[in-house]
Amino acid sequence: MSIGDLGKRLLLGRKLRNTQLGETLLPKRVALPVFASDALSSVGYAPDEIFLVLSAAGLAYYTVSWQIGLGVAFVMLVVIASYRQNVQAYQSGGGDYEVATTNVGSAAGLTVASALMVDYVLTVAVSISSAAQYAAAAIDPLQGHEATVAIAAVAFLMTANLRGVKESGTAFAIPTYIFMVAIFSMILWGFFRYVRGTLPDAELADYGIRGTQTIVGGFGSFALVFLLLRAFASGSAALTGVEAISNGVPAFRKPKGKNAATTLALLGAIAVTMGLSILVLGNLMNVRLADVDNGVRLIDPAGKLVPREFNQDPMIGQLAQGIFDHFPLGFYLVAAATGVILVLAANTAFNGFPVLASILAGDGYLPRQLHTRGDRLAFSNGIVLLAGFAILLIYSFDAQVTRLIQLYIVGVFVSFTVSQLGMVRHWTRHLRSETDGAARGRMQRSRVINAIGLTVTALVLVIVLVTKFTHGAWLAIVAMTVLFFMMRGIRHHYDLVARELAVEQHDTSLPARIHAIVLVSKVHKPTLRAVAYARASRPNTLEAVTVDVDDDTTQQLLARWDETGLPVPLRVLASPYREITKPVLDYVRELRRLSPRDVVTVYIPEYVVGRWWEQILHNQTALRLKSRLLFTPGVMVTSVPFQLRSSTAARERADRDEYVGGAVRRGMARTRRREDDDNG
Amino acid sequence: MSIGDLGKRLLLGRKLRNTQLGETLLPKRVALPVFASDALSSVGYAPDEIFLVLSAAGLAYYTVSWQIGLGVAFVMLVVIASYRQNVQAYQSGGGDYEVATTNVGSAAGLTVASALMVDYVLTVAVSISSAAQYAAAAIDPLQGHEATVAIAAVAFLMTANLRGVKESGTAFAIPTYIFMVAIFSMILWGFFRYVRGTLPDAELADYGIRGTQTIVGGFGSFALVFLLLRAFASGSAALTGVEAISNGVPAFRKPKGKNAATTLALLGAIAVTMGLSILVLGNLMNVRLADVDNGVRLIDPAGKLVPREFNQDPMIGQLAQGIFDHFPLGFYLVAAATGVILVLAANTAFNGFPVLASILAGDGYLPRQLHTRGDRLAFSNGIVLLAGFAILLIYSFDAQVTRLIQLYIVGVFVSFTVSQLGMVRHWTRHLRSETDGAARGRMQRSRVINAIGLTVTALVLVIVLVTKFTHGAWLAIVAMTVLFFMMRGIRHHYDLVARELAVEQHDTSLPARIHAIVLVSKVHKPTLRAVAYARASRPNTLEAVTVDVDDDTTQQLLARWDETGLPVPLRVLASPYREITKPVLDYVRELRRLSPRDVVTVYIPEYVVGRWWEQILHNQTALRLKSRLLFTPGVMVTSVPFQLRSSTAARERADRDEYVGGAVRRGMARTRRREDDDNG
Repeated sequence: MSIGDLGKRLLLGRKLRNTQLGETLLPKRVALPVFASDALSSVGYAPDEIFLVLSAAGLAYYTVSWQIGLGVAFVMLVVIASYRQNVQAYQSGGGDYEVATTNVGSAAGLTVASALMVDYVLTVAVSISSAAQYAAAAIDPLQGHEATVAIAAVAFLMTANLRGVKESGTAFAIPTYIFMVAIFSMILWGFFRYVRGTLPDAELADYGIRGTQTIVGGFGSFALVFLLLRAFASGSAALTGVEAISNGVPAFRKPKGKNAATTLALLGAIAVTMGLSILVLGNLMNVRLADVDNGVRLIDPAGKLVPREFNQDPMIGQLAQGIFDHFPLGFYLVAAATGVILVLAANTAFNGFPVLASILAGDGYLPRQLHTRGDRLAFSNGIVLLAGFAILLIYSFDAQVTRLIQLYIVGVFVSFTVSQLGMVRHWTRHLRSETDGAARGRMQRSRVINAIGLTVTALVLVIVLVTKFTHGAWLAIVAMTVLFFMMRGIRHHYDLVARELAVEQHDTSLPARIHAIVLVSKVHKPTLRAVAYARASRPNTLEAVTVDVDDDTTQQLLARWDETGLPVPLRVLASPYREITKPVLDYVRELRRLSPRDVVTVYIPEYVVGRWWEQILHNQTALRLKSRLLFTPGVMVTSVPFQLRSSTAARERADRDEYVGGAVRRGMARTRRREDDDNG
Repeated sequence: MSIGDLGKRLLLGRKLRNTQLGETLLPKRVALPVFASDALSSVGYAPDEIFLVLSAAGLAYYTVSWQIGLGVAFVMLVVIASYRQNVQAYQSGGGDYEVATTNVGSAAGLTVASALMVDYVLTVAVSISSAAQYAAAAIDPLQGHEATVAIAAVAFLMTANLRGVKESGTAFAIPTYIFMVAIFSMILWGFFRYVRGTLPDAELADYGIRGTQTIVGGFGSFALVFLLLRAFASGSAALTGVEAISNGVPAFRKPKGKNAATTLALLGAIAVTMGLSILVLGNLMNVRLADVDNGVRLIDPAGKLVPREFNQDPMIGQLAQGIFDHFPLGFYLVAAATGVILVLAANTAFNGFPVLASILAGDGYLPRQLHTRGDRLAFSNGIVLLAGFAILLIYSFDAQVTRLIQLYIVGVFVSFTVSQLGMVRHWTRHLRSETDGAARGRMQRSRVINAIGLTVTALVLVIVLVTKFTHGAWLAIVAMTVLFFMMRGIRHHYDLVARELAVEQHDTSLPARIHAIVLVSKVHKPTLRAVAYARASRPNTLEAVTVDVDDDTTQQLLARWDETGLPVPLRVLASPYREITKPVLDYVRELRRLSPRDVVTVYIPEYVVGRWWEQILHNQTALRLKSRLLFTPGVMVTSVPFQLRSSTAARERADRDEYVGGAVRRGMARTRRREDDDNG
């Protein structure tokens, strides 16, 4: 469609109807991989974390890892069961924020929102750091430079998203399926070799571990219980990403709720199977992972301590290396697929963060300009912020997943817990009005499931807080608190302003007259254009005004002005102290004082230039004057632009950006419009 | 005078006459201290530098220091004699920049300007670092924290200058006279005690020095010659500040040239006496200063190396400690007076830098907004820039005067040399047209003096470059080169723009009609005001326009609009991708396309808020739209401000700043206007 066409439609007032909506809704087989990358990618680091925490007690307690895995799997299944209720009750895509706000209150909603925002940043930091580890496992020269690799990757993701990569169904589906095939092949082949008795040991299987704590009193001791709980808390990182589906319900084909619930169940089954299988294989193959940061050390078969700098490959890497020892390509495939899915998981945050920010801005909790989803800059800001914080975290924590993960899951479980509380209240409220017996039964069943979800997630949250607070979780809590109060403050400010701006009565009276002033510093094209436009506007009075900072210049200007033959008088304002702003301000205020019912409109000729450094060289006085004039009631400020040649290129650049931006916007708009289509 | 009064005068078009000018011209007794602080303050570090360089050869060559001092004194007298010609020929205050531009060409002028700007930064860095050393000498706990003290002092000077400290005659005269009295008392008392045979040794007199180079072959060796030249180059730091008087000629009473020349001679006599006396006393009292940074070490009487961290007091501090050993207050007085005059010297840079920038901006070499001397922001930018670079230097060089001084005097001598070349050409040119015999004689004599000045300063420049290039002078050269090309580029740009904007013929034709558009997002006070103002302007067509990013909101808006009963139609622009900027831009361009001879004026309601963070929360869409609209030819953008309550405080704050700023401006304006008064 040409611009002319578009313009015609606009002029005709006919609005564009979106007819191409339904076809983009996702079938389950595409929805699963689209929303699962975040959740599934956590098998890339969650099992490792369990092993790492347990390593503090030496080799002895590695064997408990699969029991801990079972615990995590249990929580996973409870959370999945709970969210199956969520997705059937709330299908708008507002997710936990909506559930919490609707059922518990705005403070709860804001808590969830703060938690989720912190979480998005951590999703990027953890996923990319983990991906960097896989890259280092596959490509030796990268070892020791994980932080650099990770920061470069975040910068790349940021650039790609700024330029307009969109979350496209099939583009996401293929690598996710490749990942699933790769991991399951590895697992199956591993078990097959185990049954055949040919499963080799992991590379470091004959290494020992020097722990940092000796468990006295066995399973009854407090130290051990604490250690196991901490391992469990770390393993719970596997649960991150489950909530993604609840935000994505609008993208499902109808019946949306049911399809989303089915997909959730599928996701749970896959994630649990993968995670547990990896833990079991890790035990069978005697994988060694030492928590070097917390003082745990590897001991080589000769009994010597392995240097701290020794590179430990992640669990899946070690498994793949062993299982595919006769088939090195398999190892590279598994490592690459895991790395790619971790990057995709990070990318979901780049899509999710601006959407959440947009919803929050719509509710007045964030600057309003973030609300308009179609707006390129709104997304750009969000993307740059997200990338900036993620890079800061990666840099500060040296891309060490083990240390980042301490901050990670607090937000997830805050969100889970508040959301489940909201769901319990949701059913209670609905039960009050529901009379149909069958429906009541279903609701009561759902309420029980959500109540169990609430109990379990709250319990896990407490465990996470207790075992990880001093390890870094406090930092996440601080960030969430700061965000919470910042957003509350913004909302408060908007409310105040709205009250101040509200129209009490319709006063349609007009100002009596318009005094026009054209600011003149030289006689050149921009000035002449400003005078011409001002004259065309036919104000009641019109005069040109210049400030006399230098007598010679002023005399020259007056002579030149006479030459132009313009029927507009040029008034010279004295400036004893060679100021510009103050004489003009004083003059305008004086005009206003003399006739308060009139309006003064100040025409300012402005050069429009194309390059940022040109902007520094021009218009600075005009800008300052403008910003001061705006503070004066009864004044309009009219910029009359004069486009210099260099501005043409800039305009074309901006139009092009607008166009490229359009791609993103269209992508995002599609997602949101599915919902409209569904509701309307 | 009340604002009403002022307004009346402005309305009557009567210009303010400045009648209070003559009385502020400075008599010699005030002019000397005002302009001398920079030049005199260098005795605070220049003698030290000679000793420090010589220390590389061990104790043996300390005795040469006074011969080197004589060499520096000779150069000083030559420069003073030369500048006595300058001040009589050029009395406008343009200084070396004017002399070079007028007589050698704009490239030479620009070279001088670059050199001077680099020099201003170094004046601040060196003087304040030296002052910090004196502070540390007097107050022991400051030792080792000189850099922190110096940075704090620069920050303080910056704040004071931003708030409006002015270079006031008497305020400068008193501490400078105190300094002169303190130093001469110390010198006289020292010589008196020497004659009486009671002059004590300096504190470290019985310490030895382990040099870094052994001079083989005595005075004939290249190494020694190089060392002596380097000592001489370092000692030449004493010459910085001499050019200050040539910038200050307009401030002298008449006959300006003669008075300035007399003051110069006086300054030269005082500086040379002080400097040489200090060197002689330093030798008599066996002061020890070791160039620790370049590997020279002190050896204590027991023969052990003194640790590098050992704090060496500056020369004047060591002298005062010895000479006033029976009268500690004397030591503190000398240290304090020296510290204060060094800070004053730095402060002169804070006054000189914006003035130079203003002259350069007037010639189109710097952004034009730096030109208006009365403008507070122009000065603020200059002050902040100067302080920023000075702090950067102090931080990078750890406030070590010895290292900073390597960069320092390149700029001074570049400026001296080019300026003397200019003077020689000046006289040659004038001799061509002068016929009066007596005048020709005076001119020829002046030309000889300036030719000698040229030779000597050029020679010193070469010595400085050769002996200090690798020690840091290269950095100053790089900075000067960058500045040079930056300023050339800016001038080139302004020339291009001026050609593009020049009016070839006076086309006073007007646009045919005015289409007005009011942008509407809500029905609230700012919108109603914008509509009222737009209606009062009586455009040919007027419509309100809103962008439909959300159907519900748009429907509500339409309903509310009808309620207002405004006789202005509200057009809804479709936004299929939920953009705001693009639909408006497209609509405006379409209007332009349909009637190219008309002008579109877009009224944008703007909230005016008082705090920076409020600005982030409002107007962002308006701002973006505005900046895009300016790129479209034939469009005016009118901001209709609505002042929120919080803006009142901000306006009052701005007015107050304007007033405080006035004090500075008045101070500066006074200096400049003296010249007008004198010429007119």
